[in-house]
Amino acid sequence: MKKLTVTLAATALATLPGLAFAQDAAAETPDITPYIFTTLLFLIGGFLVFWMAAGFAMLEAGLVRSKNVTMQLTKNVALFSIAAIMYWLIGFNLMYPGEGWIVPGVLGPLFAVTSLEPVGLGADAAALDYASAGSDFFFQLMFCATTASIVSGTLAERIKLWPFLIFVAILTGVIYPIEASWQWGGGFLSEMGFSDFAGSTLVHAAGGFAALAGALILGPRIGKYKDGRTVPMPGSNLALATLGTFILWLGWFGFNGGSQLAMGTVGDVTDVSRIFANTNMAAAAGAVTALLLTQLLFKKPDLTMILNGALAGLVSITAGPLDPTLFGALWIGAVGGVIVVFAVPMLDKMQIDDVVGAIPVHLLAGFWGTFAVPFYTADTSFVTQIIGFAAIGAFTFVVSGVVWMILKSTMGIRVTEEDEINGLDMAELGMDAYPEFKAS
Amino acid sequence: MKKLTVTLAATALATLPGLAFAQDAAAETPDITPYIFTTLLFLIGGFLVFWMAAGFAMLEAGLVRSKNVTMQLTKNVALFSIAAIMYWLIGFNLMYPGEGWIVPGVLGPLFAVTSLEPVGLGADAAALDYASAGSDFFFQLMFCATTASIVSGTLAERIKLWPFLIFVAILTGVIYPIEASWQWGGGFLSEMGFSDFAGSTLVHAAGGFAALAGALILGPRIGKYKDGRTVPMPGSNLALATLGTFILWLGWFGFNGGSQLAMGTVGDVTDVSRIFANTNMAAAAGAVTALLLTQLLFKKPDLTMILNGALAGLVSITAGPLDPTLFGALWIGAVGGVIVVFAVPMLDKMQIDDVVGAIPVHLLAGFWGTFAVPFYTADTSFVTQIIGFAAIGAFTFVVSGVVWMILKSTMGIRVTEEDEINGLDMAELGMDAYPEFKAS
Amino acid sequence: MKKLTVTLAATALATLPGLAFAQDAAAETPDITPYIFTTLLFLIGGFLVFWMAAGFAMLEAGLVRSKNVTMQLTKNVALFSIAAIMYWLIGFNLMYPGEGWIVPGVLGPLFAVTSLEPVGLGADAAALDYASAGSDFFFQLMFCATTASIVSGTLAERIKLWPFLIFVAILTGVIYPIEASWQWGGGFLSEMGFSDFAGSTLVHAAGGFAALAGALILGPRIGKYKDGRTVPMPGSNLALATLGTFILWLGWFGFNGGSQLAMGTVGDVTDVSRIFANTNMAAAAGAVTALLLTQLLFKKPDLTMILNGALAGLVSITAGPLDPTLFGALWIGAVGGVIVVFAVPMLDKMQIDDVVGAIPVHLLAGFWGTFAVPFYTADTSFVTQIIGFAAIGAFTFVVSGVVWMILKSTMGIRVTEEDEINGLDMAELGMDAYPEFKAS
Repeated sequence: MKKLTVTLAATALATLPGLAFAQDAAAETPDITPYIFTTLLFLIGGFLVFWMAAGFAMLEAGLVRSKNVTMQLTKNVALFSIAAIMYWLIGFNLMYPGEGWIVPGVLGPLFAVTSLEPVGLGADAAALDYASAGSDFFFQLMFCATTASIVSGTLAERIKLWPFLIFVAILTGVIYPIEASWQWGGGFLSEMGFSDFAGSTLVHAAGGFAALAGALILGPRIGKYKDGRTVPMPGSNLALATLGTFILWLGWFGFNGGSQLAMGTVGDVTDVSRIFANTNMAAAAGAVTALLLTQLLFKKPDLTMILNGALAGLVSITAGPLDPTLFGALWIGAVGGVIVVFAVPMLDKMQIDDVVGAIPVHLLAGFWGTFAVPFYTADTSFVTQIIGFAAIGAFTFVVSGVVWMILKSTMGIRVTEEDEINGLDMAELGMDAYPEFKAS
Repeated sequence: MKKLTVTLAATALATLPGLAFAQDAAAETPDITPYIFTTLLFLIGGFLVFWMAAGFAMLEAGLVRSKNVTMQLTKNVALFSIAAIMYWLIGFNLMYPGEGWIVPGVLGPLFAVTSLEPVGLGADAAALDYASAGSDFFFQLMFCATTASIVSGTLAERIKLWPFLIFVAILTGVIYPIEASWQWGGGFLSEMGFSDFAGSTLVHAAGGFAALAGALILGPRIGKYKDGRTVPMPGSNLALATLGTFILWLGWFGFNGGSQLAMGTVGDVTDVSRIFANTNMAAAAGAVTALLLTQLLFKKPDLTMILNGALAGLVSITAGPLDPTLFGALWIGAVGGVIVVFAVPMLDKMQIDDVVGAIPVHLLAGFWGTFAVPFYTADTSFVTQIIGFAAIGAFTFVVSGVVWMILKSTMGIRVTEEDEINGLDMAELGMDAYPEFKAS
Repeated sequence: MKKLTVTLAATALATLPGLAFAQDAAAETPDITPYIFTTLLFLIGGFLVFWMAAGFAMLEAGLVRSKNVTMQLTKNVALFSIAAIMYWLIGFNLMYPGEGWIVPGVLGPLFAVTSLEPVGLGADAAALDYASAGSDFFFQLMFCATTASIVSGTLAERIKLWPFLIFVAILTGVIYPIEASWQWGGGFLSEMGFSDFAGSTLVHAAGGFAALAGALILGPRIGKYKDGRTVPMPGSNLALATLGTFILWLGWFGFNGGSQLAMGTVGDVTDVSRIFANTNMAAAAGAVTALLLTQLLFKKPDLTMILNGALAGLVSITAGPLDPTLFGALWIGAVGGVIVVFAVPMLDKMQIDDVVGAIPVHLLAGFWGTFAVPFYTADTSFVTQIIGFAAIGAFTFVVSGVVWMILKSTMGIRVTEEDEINGLDMAELGMDAYPEFKAS
């Protein structure tokens, strides 16, 4: 998703002889069709990425124990809603400052509420080379919310509701928009040549870094690590977790495909097709890799690893879903699957308690995907990719850490030991997700 | 969704100088692109609203007790299927009489089966200023089915299957099409200037009134109200209820966005974008409001209230999703959330037993949304809005009440006390939804 | 989905006077809009059919007993992923040989990996009368995966994971592409005039035949048939099964609608609308028929029959979703519902153990749908339809049977008796889907 770059590229393309007819026609009557197509791409992409909010909710609800399911559902509905409001209130204009940078390339306007075009916009007033601002806002908002969804899974089963939601408000209103502005807002990373098509770093790794900071400060769940051993705490509903994964997979077509940011030319719609095919291939490769690896290593395929393998494949291809061949998407996604299978136990060894595996999937596979971009394009280099990742990672990790520390030292971020053992549902919400089914 | 009005508006717009090029081009070769775009809008909008049928099914299955889940699922699949047949057989032409009114502006033709265009329709035979009749029928059908979905939640856990389905057939074949014809079919309410863009009144409040009539005649569940106290009967699966809410939220983009009824111009597709953004904002605001209010009032956030808050936000914005600013959508949706939090206990105090909260969400927030339209447009007045709501409410409530009374006095509408206590699943269907999970 | 035929038809239509303006315009500047629309149709259709993979997963997870749910979920995620890889590696080019037939009309190239168009394809290099190859591959891949999804349901609760997945690799890489090439690849069946618009035979019956061969060789579950009596083994989660059915229903709009293979003309988009409306009607009719029939025959409506009735209605209309009137779709779908209600117990009488009813739904209703095509079009005859069905059925059944026999005699296809009784989840995967819920 390179908003500025893409617009420039479109202008450049229009001067090529092969596309000259479009210009000739435009000389007489402005062609509104590309505008409609790109707007439609954002609307479809946007509702698909919205659907990922449901995917995270189901994935996480399936992977926590039944005594924490209502809380996990509450957090997911609330975080999306808060993201929607914060991104409108601050985030969108902070992320896309246009001419309004406070610190050029680094910091946009700190408070500028989003407005939509007037009703019944005339063709003469529209950005005919792009899309409607409303559709753009709708699409971008969903990416912001995704970043927050990533955090909720890692910190499940022990974090208090309200400090979590305050963190979400800051993440979606300020942290994400600032770091994302560095690239998609035309900031210093995009100047530098960094490449992150749909957000392996900007969305996924950033969410992962915010989650990692939280996990370190919050500490592991009671009883998770005993005498240097990891105690399995199996998820309560793998059918929901699988449903969540399928929802995310579906939503990802919008996530990556919509990030082409244009659908009104042969080249653009064909690129969107390429992206759809590559995205699907990477997910499939991640899942198959995790299936094979868990069979080989543990003698038993592990469904939760397979689900996370698919998701890691998706995150891996997200930084560069357009340039690779289908074979490229396959091996890039497969490496994502490998990362998950090795990183999940590694994190446990480090006693970093990540309930749903969000750090391996989003942060580590996010790094891999970002790093892998230059294998298939000369537009960036491995060094640039590492610098970009490091910049966003450091910023997000440090600022998130500071916010978590402040929240911890003021209102506290962790439920009491008793509440954690009894489950957050009864303690904090007084409402069981499955009140009629006896826990064994 | 103002079919006639919009078509007229499109004609008016076409005469403006800014859009003249479209006319010039059309003079030589009819431009088929807007027809394709609008048809596509109906197809996409239609499948999204179809998906709401699954949303209602999951929401309701999650909010009833496990002994009634199979029944609730059966009702939801059956009601959608019956709606599809009745709307084809009678409803669609009754709702859009064109020149075929029996009583002008009030009653359309009582029996006129829907036909589609022939295969391979030529451009010269098509309604190039609108969309294909097939896509229109497909889209409108989904709204009709939604009306029936609303009823099933309120009356759950005690109504017999067959009288409920007979009511659905009458509601979707006759009651909904007649009241909807008054506005969207070009009837007397649209003449009067009433405004209900996507159906806060026509769909949601109407469904709510049909449900209310049923609830009053059916009476509350056994044991729900004891010595003036309300006995909580918690839903069996809040993960399903949350999934259902996310599905409904997703489907609502099609519900409101598709109701623009046009996507072939810059103005229309930009309006659709505006509607998507506003719809999302209203839902988010409804959810956050219910979250904050239940925290303040009950000291514990209540997930079912938050879910219903999101839905009430969606219903509230449905009468006018285009005109408000994002801030307008926010406060309109937030009021929807307030309504739910106060109306759910209020209904219980009145001993009106509404299992899933459909009356607060669809009827009361439907009224609010309808009433709020003039805040952001001068096309209608508060008085007109109240008259329109009252007309549709009175008609739907009275006719529904008569139908429920007839059903009650002939075949009976309520299961036996024994069957209700044992659960409808074993009594009426002989099939448990979760046969292996022990109820505690 | 008649790729070649449709392309030819489009050329033919373009010479008609009514469409001449399109040609005139094209003489000066090639019109890229139809290309974008059709590509978009494939992308939307493709993600909807992708979603069907989730539908099968939920349907099957809901219809197996809780001790086999993790396995069923694992199989569904894995089979889709394997299909995605095999179809890329072999299937797509084997199915659409173009000029590359090894045996003309019968066998395509045995190994030709799929490539996508280059990034930023120019309009002069694009197949402007069709769509992007990437979108076509994406769309077709989903059909291939659907075929495999059908098999997993029938063989649930007793087949070992790995032989099943090996079979899936062969089915999706070789068997399906070969039989599908006979029709959609321009092979001998399409030459013969066989008609199967979206795959009642090519996808659904083929999947059903592969499943039938497996079921016969694998044998029924332990304890399913006792002293000539069928022992009911109720599904563990009917809410999931219902969700799965709604997902499939939704996905089917993409399955049938996308198979129009064109959306860039008035005729095509209107046809897509027709297909959406007919598809919905057939599903509704199948559900209502199963509802009424189970009430009449068993005195109690049977939800699993109603769900399978809807699916059988969908399969029935899939061979010819365009030509029938809405009434035609209704009765064709209704017959599908009748088939399910009678065939499910009939299969049990034959002691063919089909856990989810996939053979009645996909094979038998697939035959019915294929047979019914000539009722509404003169393009084919009943005899041709029967020949086509028999050819594909015989090939798929025999080759599948051989593969199953080889797998059985080499690695074995069935879990041990002990593992089957304890459940595949603990035995093969060591992971319970619902670890906290006590089975009664």
